[in-house]
Amino acid sequence: MAPFELPIDGVTVDQESLREWTAEIVRRLSTPLDIANDVAEVLVASDLRGVASHGTFRLPVYASLAEAGVIDVIARPQKQSGTQVFSHWDAANGWGPHAGRVLMDDAIDRASTLGMAASIAHRASHFSIAGWYAMRAAARGLIGMTMTNSSPLVAPTRGRSRLLGTNPIALAAPAGRFGMFVLDMATSAVTWGRVVVAARRETEIVPGIALGGDGRPTTVPGHVLESGALLPLGGGEETAGYKGYGLALMVDVLTGVLAGANFGSRVVPFSTTLGPSDLGQLFIAIDPGSIDAAGFEGRMEDLCEELVTAPLAPGAPGRVLIPGEPEAEREAYQREHGILLDIRHHESLVELGERRGVRFPAVRGAPVEDRR
Amino acid sequence: MAPFELPIDGVTVDQESLREWTAEIVRRLSTPLDIANDVAEVLVASDLRGVASHGTFRLPVYASLAEAGVIDVIARPQKQSGTQVFSHWDAANGWGPHAGRVLMDDAIDRASTLGMAASIAHRASHFSIAGWYAMRAAARGLIGMTMTNSSPLVAPTRGRSRLLGTNPIALAAPAGRFGMFVLDMATSAVTWGRVVVAARRETEIVPGIALGGDGRPTTVPGHVLESGALLPLGGGEETAGYKGYGLALMVDVLTGVLAGANFGSRVVPFSTTLGPSDLGQLFIAIDPGSIDAAGFEGRMEDLCEELVTAPLAPGAPGRVLIPGEPEAEREAYQREHGILLDIRHHESLVELGERRGVRFPAVRGAPVEDRR
Repeated sequence: MAPFELPIDGVTVDQESLREWTAEIVRRLSTPLDIANDVAEVLVASDLRGVASHGTFRLPVYASLAEAGVIDVIARPQKQSGTQVFSHWDAANGWGPHAGRVLMDDAIDRASTLGMAASIAHRASHFSIAGWYAMRAAARGLIGMTMTNSSPLVAPTRGRSRLLGTNPIALAAPAGRFGMFVLDMATSAVTWGRVVVAARRETEIVPGIALGGDGRPTTVPGHVLESGALLPLGGGEETAGYKGYGLALMVDVLTGVLAGANFGSRVVPFSTTLGPSDLGQLFIAIDPGSIDAAGFEGRMEDLCEELVTAPLAPGAPGRVLIPGEPEAEREAYQREHGILLDIRHHESLVELGERRGVRFPAVRGAPVEDRR
Repeated sequence: MAPFELPIDGVTVDQESLREWTAEIVRRLSTPLDIANDVAEVLVASDLRGVASHGTFRLPVYASLAEAGVIDVIARPQKQSGTQVFSHWDAANGWGPHAGRVLMDDAIDRASTLGMAASIAHRASHFSIAGWYAMRAAARGLIGMTMTNSSPLVAPTRGRSRLLGTNPIALAAPAGRFGMFVLDMATSAVTWGRVVVAARRETEIVPGIALGGDGRPTTVPGHVLESGALLPLGGGEETAGYKGYGLALMVDVLTGVLAGANFGSRVVPFSTTLGPSDLGQLFIAIDPGSIDAAGFEGRMEDLCEELVTAPLAPGAPGRVLIPGEPEAEREAYQREHGILLDIRHHESLVELGERRGVRFPAVRGAPVEDRR
């Protein structure tokens, strides 16, 4: 059930060293220190949680976007309109993790007095994992929600072309002795990164999650990557894939369309330097303490308790999991033992460090044998 | 892609007559007139949209709950705590469609000045289709969102027992010349009603949407109804069913847990007279006019235009649909030609009318031949 794929080869690097190195790389791209620290914080948090596809793996692309001026390295998000409850921001094509952190914190501060508040941005950039922002609210005892639209990779139900992003939804809530409830999910059946990993490992993907370039379902990752598309959560029409399609649209409506950003196929794919993605991003904070229903975290514990003790289906690989639980375990492990980067990921960072004159930190031990 | 199943046999009744008859039945249960009108309005709206499982089909059960005192027929929802932005209500086990209408309208009114506002209820009752409330906001030019938890029918990923409701999410937004965007979806792969319909028609259900009483996937509807469970959207773990599971939990956290209502398996199944369900329900309204991104509806039109003209996959049964489009078509048709009720649905209403001394309205023409 892990939403991440553990590397099958790689080296281990201390999380603090990786964060410092990442911040230094971003700083050398002429980014102010506080902004660089936000970028490093979020990317390394993604690595720590085992979501390698959204962590420092993206840094070489981020750097090329900054160099090309597609990311404006000194831009700071500005409140542009809206109300005290619902504020509309111009993220000014600055660093995504910085704008996201600022907008979420602003929503959290306002929700603490208003009960609920939201920030919405246009001209936003890729911000790594949506869950990080929602978790920021949960760490303060609030419920956090985050949505963003993203590069078009998903075909609408009945369609064959890439029209919608994997448009994630994240919700985090404090859960007492269970730590945090963290749902952080793409509204596609799988992420693009999963298909990339399958291609690299020369394995097939499961049926019902993607189309080839001919618009027919395929299990060959190369067919998807070349000219195919992901399917929405639920897969085909007969297995209710129109619900995943609807959810992807819900996110687009609440982000790109509402914020006056790009939406649908107009979103400029993240990895190109054609121009800013101009994403829409929404951050909501709700304070359970604002309503007279004391004991929110106790009820979260009761719900989680019921789940982890639930009767299992035959062949279940383990007990029922709480959303975010595998990532929290991975984070705890990697905080202590270091972050495992796969070989290509590590190589790309070493190379980036050489180009920028910031030597990549020493790894813990030699690279392990490539087990492919 | 229709989320509803058209009756395969039945009679046709004028929508206005059905609404008046329904209101009269509810009124005879000692319900104040305005409350009875809300109940009739929402149930018949569900029928009009082709969602027969949530319309007047439920009236006999509603009536028995009212008779048993499980629904408090004279209760009106009261604001209990919260803030101007986020208000917490006691729905007092009154009629669900009335409380829902009041809470949504209150959120709409507040959002019109605040930019965004929400109402959350505990001690709420079944309220028919979630989309109706969201559409009320869209009819005023706002974005509406509604969520409710519901009777436990869904197994968590890896589990086998009924722990979670089909916990729907609805979002409606005005879409200019495309009318309204209305996503209204259970977070299970299919609704319970679909399985009931399959059993009645003696057909199989598609694989990957439900478990039998042994906890194994089944395509036999009877096995599901007897002691099985629905699977979350996405199906099994390998096809990302944990995302549907996460969404069902998200709804439970934002409704039952947050509101201090029942949640998880504690929700009293709707059709029993054991006691009130004590549902949690959330209603959110967002005013796109509150932010400086003029032209929200124009952007909705652009998004919809891109969808309906999208290149199709081979074998697609028609063009790409916009969420809510099949229901809107059905509603337009049935407003003119009458509402088609299947034979058993019609019989149950005739019987209810006889018991309550309110004769069911004349149907248009004789029942058509049963085509099963």
